[in-house]
Amino acid sequence: MILAETILDLRQAVRVVRAAGETIGLVPTMGALHAGHTSLIDAAAGECDFVVVTIFVNPIQFAPTEDFADYPRAPVADLALCEQHGAAAIFAPGVEEMFPRQNETSVSVAHLSEKLCGRSRPGHFTGVCTVVAKLFNLVQPDRAYFGAKDYQQAVILRRMAEDLNFPVEVVTCPIVREPDGLAISSRNAYLTQEQRLQAPALYAALRHAQAWVRRETPAAAEVIQAIRADLAEHAPLGEVDYVQLVDPETLEDVETTDRPVVTALAVRFGKARLIDNLRIEP
Amino acid sequence: MILAETILDLRQAVRVVRAAGETIGLVPTMGALHAGHTSLIDAAAGECDFVVVTIFVNPIQFAPTEDFADYPRAPVADLALCEQHGAAAIFAPGVEEMFPRQNETSVSVAHLSEKLCGRSRPGHFTGVCTVVAKLFNLVQPDRAYFGAKDYQQAVILRRMAEDLNFPVEVVTCPIVREPDGLAISSRNAYLTQEQRLQAPALYAALRHAQAWVRRETPAAAEVIQAIRADLAEHAPLGEVDYVQLVDPETLEDVETTDRPVVTALAVRFGKARLIDNLRIEP
Repeated sequence: MILAETILDLRQAVRVVRAAGETIGLVPTMGALHAGHTSLIDAAAGECDFVVVTIFVNPIQFAPTEDFADYPRAPVADLALCEQHGAAAIFAPGVEEMFPRQNETSVSVAHLSEKLCGRSRPGHFTGVCTVVAKLFNLVQPDRAYFGAKDYQQAVILRRMAEDLNFPVEVVTCPIVREPDGLAISSRNAYLTQEQRLQAPALYAALRHAQAWVRRETPAAAEVIQAIRADLAEHAPLGEVDYVQLVDPETLEDVETTDRPVVTALAVRFGKARLIDNLRIEP
Repeated sequence: MILAETILDLRQAVRVVRAAGETIGLVPTMGALHAGHTSLIDAAAGECDFVVVTIFVNPIQFAPTEDFADYPRAPVADLALCEQHGAAAIFAPGVEEMFPRQNETSVSVAHLSEKLCGRSRPGHFTGVCTVVAKLFNLVQPDRAYFGAKDYQQAVILRRMAEDLNFPVEVVTCPIVREPDGLAISSRNAYLTQEQRLQAPALYAALRHAQAWVRRETPAAAEVIQAIRADLAEHAPLGEVDYVQLVDPETLEDVETTDRPVVTALAVRFGKARLIDNLRIEP
C-alpha cells in the first residue's frame, strides 16, 4: 500500500495507475475510520482497480466554534483498516500541504447548501465542496464514494460534480449502524454513557415514522410532530436541531408523504451533534 | 478537425487522445476570433499535441445590463481560423449543453475578483471561473491559454487552478495589438469611427507612463493623474472607469513605482468598454 503525504507523491502514484489504464476509486475521509468508512472502501475495491483513501481533517468545513481541534484522530489504526479493506493508496496530507496559503478559491452549491444542516452550519458545505473539488483534481478518480449518513452532503457533491462536469461518478453507500440502530459516526465517541444509551432513539423515531407513513401517509407536519415527541420521550438529553421531511433530490420541505421523502434529523447531545436520515416511501 | 457540439462527442475525442498519451492544449474563447485568439492557438499548437478551441459565449459572466445578446458571433469564420492555426478540435456547445438546468454551483476567487474590473462587474469573475472550471473538467487539458489583455482574468484563473489543484498549467500570452497600438478585442467592433480614432490613446497613455516611470519612478498617484490627463486630452469620447497601478500578483494598489507594477485601465466608449494594461518596471 502506498502512503502519500505530499501532493507530488500522490500525483506520481496516480499517473502510473492512469497510464496503465486502471480505474481509480476515491474514498475521502477525515480519518478515525469506522465501519461506515470501511464499507465505502469495500464498495470502491469491488468496483475499481485502484482505491485511494484520503485522510484529511479539513479545517475549512469547520466553523471557529466547532470541533476541528478535538475531532478524533487515529492515524495508526486507520492505516491498518485501509490495508485490510483493500485500499491501494492512502493520501494523508497535512493542512500546509492542502492549504499552503490563504484559501481564496471556493466552490459552492447555492440552494442545496442552505437547507437542513446548512442552516446551523453556514459555510460548512462550501468547505466540503472546495476540499472535495481539490481531491477530485488531485486523485482524478473515476468514482468517489460517500456515506448516506451525510445525505445532504452526498446530494450536494453529486450536484457539484454534475454542474462542474467533473468526470467522476459520485456513489452514495448505505448508512452502517450499530446493532442498536445508532448510525456509526466518528462523533459518537463524544457521547457520555448516558447519552449513548439514548442515541439509538434517533433511528427508532425514524423507523416509527416510516411504519406510520406506510400505514396511513399522514401529513409531513404530523410526522415531524410524532418524531419530536418520540425524541422528547426517549432521548431527553438530546436537543433537537431539526426534524424535516424533504424531497430526496431538491431537499425542499414536503407537505405530504404520498411520495418518496427523506426524513432527516439532527440532535445535539452535549458536544456531539448527531445526524441521521431515512428514505421513506408510502 | 473535429467539431463537437455536445459534451458526449467532446469527451469521446478527448478520451482517444488521452489514451494515446498525447498532451492537450485548451484555448477557451467566446468566438468572433481575432489575432489575439489565433496567437493563443499558435502558442498551444506549438506546445501541445492536440489543441482544443472552445467557442462559447458564456451567459453567466455577463450582468443582465451587459452585452451578452449583442456579443459578436462569427461561427463560420471561426472554424476556418481554428483550422488554419492548427486546432485539432473545436468544442462549440449551445447554452443548453453547458447549462442544462439552473446553474447552482459556482467557483469564485475571493479578493482578486473584487479588484479592478470586478468593481464595476460584480459576479463577472465568478461566471468566468465557473465556466473555465467546467471546461477544464470537460477537456482535461495539460495547458490552458489565456490572453494578457484580460490580465486580471489570467491572474484569477491561475489562482483558481492552483488553489483547486487542477492538473492544468495556466499560460498567459502577450497582448496582440493593432498597428496603432489598440489592444485587439472583439468589442472593438462596437466602436464608431470617431471612437476608433481615439481608442489608441489607451495604449499611448500606458507607454508614456512607462517611459516616465523608467526615468523618474514617480509616485503611483502621480502616474494615475498623468494617464487620466493624457486620456482626457486624446480620448475625450472615452469615459474612464478606472486607472490603477497594482501589484502584478495580488492586484493590490501600489503607492510607489520603484518595483514591478501592472498599470491597468478601463475606458468606456459608448457601448464598448475597453481594457488594456502594461507591466512597468523601473
